[in-house]
Amino acid sequence: MTGVYVLGVGMTRFGKHPDKDAADLGSAAFQEAVTDAGIEPRQIEAAYCGHVFQGMVTGQRILAQVGLAGLPLSNVENACSSGATAIREASLAIRAGEHDVVMAVGTEHLTTKFRGALTPDPSDPEAAVGATMPSVYAMRARRYMEEFGMTRRQLALVAVKNKRNAAANPLAHFRKEITVEDVLESRPIADPLRLHDCSPVTDGAAAVVLVSDRAVKKLGNGRAIRLAASTLFTGTVDVEPTTMTFEPLTHKTALAAYERAGIGPEDVDFAEVHDCFSIAEVLRVEGLGLFERGAYPGAVERGEADIGGRLPINPSGGLLGKGHPLGGTGVAQVVELVRQLRGEAGDRQIEGAKVGLAHCRGGKAVGIEGAACTVQVLVK
Amino acid sequence: MTGVYVLGVGMTRFGKHPDKDAADLGSAAFQEAVTDAGIEPRQIEAAYCGHVFQGMVTGQRILAQVGLAGLPLSNVENACSSGATAIREASLAIRAGEHDVVMAVGTEHLTTKFRGALTPDPSDPEAAVGATMPSVYAMRARRYMEEFGMTRRQLALVAVKNKRNAAANPLAHFRKEITVEDVLESRPIADPLRLHDCSPVTDGAAAVVLVSDRAVKKLGNGRAIRLAASTLFTGTVDVEPTTMTFEPLTHKTALAAYERAGIGPEDVDFAEVHDCFSIAEVLRVEGLGLFERGAYPGAVERGEADIGGRLPINPSGGLLGKGHPLGGTGVAQVVELVRQLRGEAGDRQIEGAKVGLAHCRGGKAVGIEGAACTVQVLVK
Repeated sequence: MTGVYVLGVGMTRFGKHPDKDAADLGSAAFQEAVTDAGIEPRQIEAAYCGHVFQGMVTGQRILAQVGLAGLPLSNVENACSSGATAIREASLAIRAGEHDVVMAVGTEHLTTKFRGALTPDPSDPEAAVGATMPSVYAMRARRYMEEFGMTRRQLALVAVKNKRNAAANPLAHFRKEITVEDVLESRPIADPLRLHDCSPVTDGAAAVVLVSDRAVKKLGNGRAIRLAASTLFTGTVDVEPTTMTFEPLTHKTALAAYERAGIGPEDVDFAEVHDCFSIAEVLRVEGLGLFERGAYPGAVERGEADIGGRLPINPSGGLLGKGHPLGGTGVAQVVELVRQLRGEAGDRQIEGAKVGLAHCRGGKAVGIEGAACTVQVLVK
Repeated sequence: MTGVYVLGVGMTRFGKHPDKDAADLGSAAFQEAVTDAGIEPRQIEAAYCGHVFQGMVTGQRILAQVGLAGLPLSNVENACSSGATAIREASLAIRAGEHDVVMAVGTEHLTTKFRGALTPDPSDPEAAVGATMPSVYAMRARRYMEEFGMTRRQLALVAVKNKRNAAANPLAHFRKEITVEDVLESRPIADPLRLHDCSPVTDGAAAVVLVSDRAVKKLGNGRAIRLAASTLFTGTVDVEPTTMTFEPLTHKTALAAYERAGIGPEDVDFAEVHDCFSIAEVLRVEGLGLFERGAYPGAVERGEADIGGRLPINPSGGLLGKGHPLGGTGVAQVVELVRQLRGEAGDRQIEGAKVGLAHCRGGKAVGIEGAACTVQVLVK
């Protein structure tokens, strides 16, 4: 069975792109990833496109724009894990021996479709009773504060950290540092969460070129990074008293990824995690086993999760700072991992990192159904 | 590299299901396929769900309904090839060694969303100038008549054959035989095509359990059928004078499938092809190399494509007779292939068949972008 490597990466600026659509953004990321890999477009053998709201055959529209109409391509959807799922499926196509050079692209154009926040599905009974994403995460934040004594100020520091990292990321949606006071004084969304605790509605795309052992030998540019694990599980949303402050699905997916990669959480040097809300980052890093339960807010306060800290979390700025174009998000996380592991992360470079982890989690707010979780491990 | 086998199949009745949604239909097909495979639900390790218009995390809703929330699942979309793409991705997951027992399910609920015909995407410039699916296929029919001397009566015989086959299929949308006169007197849709030349808007789902070499040895029920090829390409739509009466994309996908399966078109005993319109069946069987260019209308007239004929085409009734629930279609074709190869096709049984082929083709009506084509070869 062949290994899988990331040979090239590309990413558009995240933010508002009123003059472009999802295919335009996807094409730009696709082309940059080809160039970055140091290969010709015609060497791409197949592609996967992750998105949520962009309509039928979006990936084919990207192929047409980059002059590659005709390739095998599958569009994949797994809510906020759609882009990460595209990477997983691309890696399976390589491991199956079907293809040696496969593009995974994630894209989403949201700002002209949604104003302020994503509109809940009107057929969704949870949304009808007010159990929207912000309100569910607000409940989880309140519960976590109660259980572990996290202060509102500690929670704000997660947003402050990620916006600071984003300010050092030229492709981030937000490039302005904020203070704890800015968070606490921002508009209330769902108590205790305020505007700066919430990820924005963003347009953007990212792409990665994945290759086999054989292709990395033939095409290798000396900068290939190994995709040591790409795991996916679905599951239920965590609103039971016993699971609200911990994520069994994140935990299970991480354990499978660690086993596949032959590492433990102690080997992870930095991570990009799905911080759709400030509290989400807390729950996720603990679910991933990167920090002990209840320990993360204090660790953030002591700077342990900063770039330069013991275990940097979301050096790209995360969803809170870099932005959250659903399909683009999971692929952009891997782009950040690769740039960090190559030493190409500029002002936000983490020194000496060898193992990076990316975590995505998506789906409906509550209910017995509808979640998807991915964990990817990249090793230098 | 492991082989891939179909161990179990399931399918809902195709037609109108006003009291159900896509997840209900998908769950029913899923459960039937598990039972048919002779395994326990918990032996399913992962799933793929193909659909077009059913919204975010539809596959997860199916898993929840069948009591399997938690499995790895990816939703895939490739227009009318979505279900077939789910089978392809499931087969790659098996060949990659990631899973041994994988469900591919395709589902679609359309009749409460669309009345009469699918509404063209308002952003689609081709639809805005009238280049909708029926009008483009009408042009292709007219051109084929001009080039090869096909008569309107010969074209009607395709619909008559498929509706006759559907009448023998208890799960078909239409169960009533029709005459050439019925076709010619039905409502004009886009000249020369009439109502009976067009596939209907249908609700329905189908599912197949795919397994590896190892699993077929362990779980084999003596009825496993080998998936000898599952190929996918994207491409352009054929409205150039040189491609209008032939399908380069269908041809290319078929050649790759024949090579993978180690067969030629002369080895195919019967086929399910994407007859979204009567003329589409003509173009497809010739693109697949099953009949010479220009030869199919005469062959249909002589009964060669009938059940009992030299090379039966669409014994299930095809899209014209069985119905066309987009995501369900490609999976249902494989269900038919398996039932025929097992000798379980009842009144529409083809005697002695050993090799069956399924062909799907989907995408936008015209333009440089947006098509997807799949060919699957099953061998007894």
